[in-house]
Amino acid sequence: MSASLPDTYDAFAAHMRQLTALSQAAGVLSWDQEVMMPPKGAAGRAEQMAALSTVMHEKITDPRMGDWLDALEDGSADFSSVEAANIRLARKKYARASKVPGRLATELARTTSMAQTVWAKARAAKDYAAFAPTLKNIIDLKREEAGYIAADGQSAYDALLADFEPGMTVAVLRPLLEGLRPRLSALRERIAEKAHTQPKLSGTFSADAQMKLARELADVLNYDWQEGRLDLSVHPFSSGTRGDSRITTRVDDHDPMGCLYSTVHELGHALYEVGLPEEHQFMPAGQHVSMGVHESQSRLWENQIGRCAAFCRWLAPRFAKAFDRPELAQGDTLYRVINRVETGFIRTEADEVHYNLHVLLRFELEEDLMAGNLSVDDLEGEWASRFERDFGTAVPDASLGVLQDVHWSVGLFGYFPTYALGNIYAAQLYQKLETDLGTLDDRLEKGETGDILAWLRKNVHEKGSLLPADELMEQASGQPVSGEPLLDYLEEKYSALLDL
Amino acid sequence: MSASLPDTYDAFAAHMRQLTALSQAAGVLSWDQEVMMPPKGAAGRAEQMAALSTVMHEKITDPRMGDWLDALEDGSADFSSVEAANIRLARKKYARASKVPGRLATELARTTSMAQTVWAKARAAKDYAAFAPTLKNIIDLKREEAGYIAADGQSAYDALLADFEPGMTVAVLRPLLEGLRPRLSALRERIAEKAHTQPKLSGTFSADAQMKLARELADVLNYDWQEGRLDLSVHPFSSGTRGDSRITTRVDDHDPMGCLYSTVHELGHALYEVGLPEEHQFMPAGQHVSMGVHESQSRLWENQIGRCAAFCRWLAPRFAKAFDRPELAQGDTLYRVINRVETGFIRTEADEVHYNLHVLLRFELEEDLMAGNLSVDDLEGEWASRFERDFGTAVPDASLGVLQDVHWSVGLFGYFPTYALGNIYAAQLYQKLETDLGTLDDRLEKGETGDILAWLRKNVHEKGSLLPADELMEQASGQPVSGEPLLDYLEEKYSALLDL
Repeated sequence: MSASLPDTYDAFAAHMRQLTALSQAAGVLSWDQEVMMPPKGAAGRAEQMAALSTVMHEKITDPRMGDWLDALEDGSADFSSVEAANIRLARKKYARASKVPGRLATELARTTSMAQTVWAKARAAKDYAAFAPTLKNIIDLKREEAGYIAADGQSAYDALLADFEPGMTVAVLRPLLEGLRPRLSALRERIAEKAHTQPKLSGTFSADAQMKLARELADVLNYDWQEGRLDLSVHPFSSGTRGDSRITTRVDDHDPMGCLYSTVHELGHALYEVGLPEEHQFMPAGQHVSMGVHESQSRLWENQIGRCAAFCRWLAPRFAKAFDRPELAQGDTLYRVINRVETGFIRTEADEVHYNLHVLLRFELEEDLMAGNLSVDDLEGEWASRFERDFGTAVPDASLGVLQDVHWSVGLFGYFPTYALGNIYAAQLYQKLETDLGTLDDRLEKGETGDILAWLRKNVHEKGSLLPADELMEQASGQPVSGEPLLDYLEEKYSALLDL
Repeated sequence: MSASLPDTYDAFAAHMRQLTALSQAAGVLSWDQEVMMPPKGAAGRAEQMAALSTVMHEKITDPRMGDWLDALEDGSADFSSVEAANIRLARKKYARASKVPGRLATELARTTSMAQTVWAKARAAKDYAAFAPTLKNIIDLKREEAGYIAADGQSAYDALLADFEPGMTVAVLRPLLEGLRPRLSALRERIAEKAHTQPKLSGTFSADAQMKLARELADVLNYDWQEGRLDLSVHPFSSGTRGDSRITTRVDDHDPMGCLYSTVHELGHALYEVGLPEEHQFMPAGQHVSMGVHESQSRLWENQIGRCAAFCRWLAPRFAKAFDRPELAQGDTLYRVINRVETGFIRTEADEVHYNLHVLLRFELEEDLMAGNLSVDDLEGEWASRFERDFGTAVPDASLGVLQDVHWSVGLFGYFPTYALGNIYAAQLYQKLETDLGTLDDRLEKGETGDILAWLRKNVHEKGSLLPADELMEQASGQPVSGEPLLDYLEEKYSALLDL
């Protein structure tokens, strides 16, 4: 007795909904772990997360998935575009999960879990050699994994990249990202000559006042407390989806901008999640389309909006009042403080000009590692020499260099480029947004950002994963993916700001 | 090829560990829902919980479970007592879950989920008739469920009772609980004559000061903040297990005792969970043995310790200081305030004397409902007449009577008696504890409760589920389960307190 196609689709859809719900449950546990869990809960939580991972792996590799997908693909002409997208996306997930042997998945999970401790210790000791053997092991495992999941002729790096930016390839990515370097380098050098003209914050800033202002920022940037919350965590992050999309930030007495702009960044992620199409909420087509697009939403709110002159005019009097620093309400002082450009070693603290140079460095290194063109033993030296070439200064130690990011220790290869893609997409989207809505300065100066959110909802969020990321970005921005809008935006902004 | 017995046990154990971990994950989600989740998260959370429930049901009814258990039971002579307990307890869970048809489980889940809203509305409207049809439906479904899970000749009520107090039967429970009534009734009448001598709190009490004192109480009662946290929720509860055992309380400006004694009550539950045997942490033998024993731990800390004269002497100066009410530090004023006895309608607000009469009323009614000796239509009237008989006053409306508790609306039949069993067990345990440790007054007056916890750890907590509850209580207290120690304790306490 063979089931009818609609019945098969329903069975498949129920299974996918359940899988998404389990993945959301794991998300709640992760949030809790970072924000609420008492320290001694770690061992038990690891068991809970492992059990959930196993169950999710069982669900996605369920042999019925293969049967359903085979039957549905045979009859896919009968499906709506949404149904077809669900089938297409589920096939990818199924193939990805089914191709990796259980032994390898377990080995990867165990190795990366232990590697985080090794990495953290090595970073604290500024000792790359202490981490290198572990990294070698991870890279071997990731290359082995890539071997299983890669399509015919696909490179290891392209196969891993597809986990985060489906459809993207090194052939497209390399010219796109490397194309940023010449103008970014030139810009940073021009700014360096005017470094002395940039004002800098000093003094201390009350933690309570930082959090209060962060909440005020979230309010004015359309965050709905009925479906979110703001808490503290060591590393800011966003978590959850429609109905319950939470953000965290951090507080540093000497750097209120970290608290405020982490809030805005994570809020951009959260607004995307709550804006995903409700009618496909638990299905593949209703999920975020790529990490690059996710990052475009956080960066657009953080930079194009949060760090623009008009919005800084909204912020300045509130900032001055919150911290009792009336001098910061004067003229464009706060705008200049917020957009101070300075060569630094740490990616996460980088300004808009340096940020993509950091990402580019990591992308090129990890691509070389995966392709076998760079050995783990040579990585520290290679990092140092490439950094000095791009940033004009020497890396003092490994904690400020090759050991600064957690990503490689947890097996994330192919993730870094999505940070730069996010910036590229954000600039394209904002350009189109200004074309469609007219100048936004008047609105931003008054803290009116509803039109911007509505535009993003309509052109990005509500599209879910119906289109691949590059097609979505092209459709939304009205032009093919390109670094030009980002470079134009940066050159224009800093030329005006520093009178270059 | 047949697997060896140890291999079979290992496969079975890994499966059970995973099941426990998933159940703990669901516990974290429930805690989050009550304490942290933004309101619009409810729909998504329902999907997540449903997915987890389905997965857990799939795991416990996995056909391999039956095969493993058959093989292990054949070879059970080879196992340690712990392994044997794991096999015995898992068999019960497997049988319970496998016997209920999926259709019925789904129907029960859906009906009780919707019933909570119906019940809440009916209670708000004080309209029993609005809830009666739903209750009828639930009772029909629970009787049907009992029909599936009952052993030969076992009554429906006994079958349901076993979900909460394995091994307990109406034949034992009825004389045990009903045996409390004569002396409790006599005691409440004697106290009523002295009602005018009991002091009562008035005024308002700062919420911050309540929470601060609640934390101080938790400290002195051995709560470890490294494996727990205290938050606010509408209804206080405890959640979690070893390493992460959280409690909540509530705050009422006019009733600081609600905040403080809910904290102590939930802390008693939490201390039990973190004291369960570490070596069997994720296995059936490492879980709490029954709800009655769980409640004995909360009630012992709340009443025998928290509300005794010696501990109230520790509390009084701290209470007086916390709320700037020096008069409450005088003599035994606070002790008398805390132990004020008053006839009330609401179980959860009842004093130690009235509490078990409330439970008795519910036990007898629900047993009659399940046995078909009482119709849902007659329930409200029956409640009213039995209440008046036991409490000497008429129920003003259904919200203060038959609609006050959520239990029946969520399908909990057989749960209420565990509250009274908890009180009975607690009194037995405390009697033995005083025999073993000598008088505790000196220690309690100084807030020293470590010896008490150590005794409970050794005699109750660390036993996990290795013995059935009644055997455990008999072994720990040195006497068979009996209501006498509870009645003696109450008569002695209130005779001294009110000079009866």
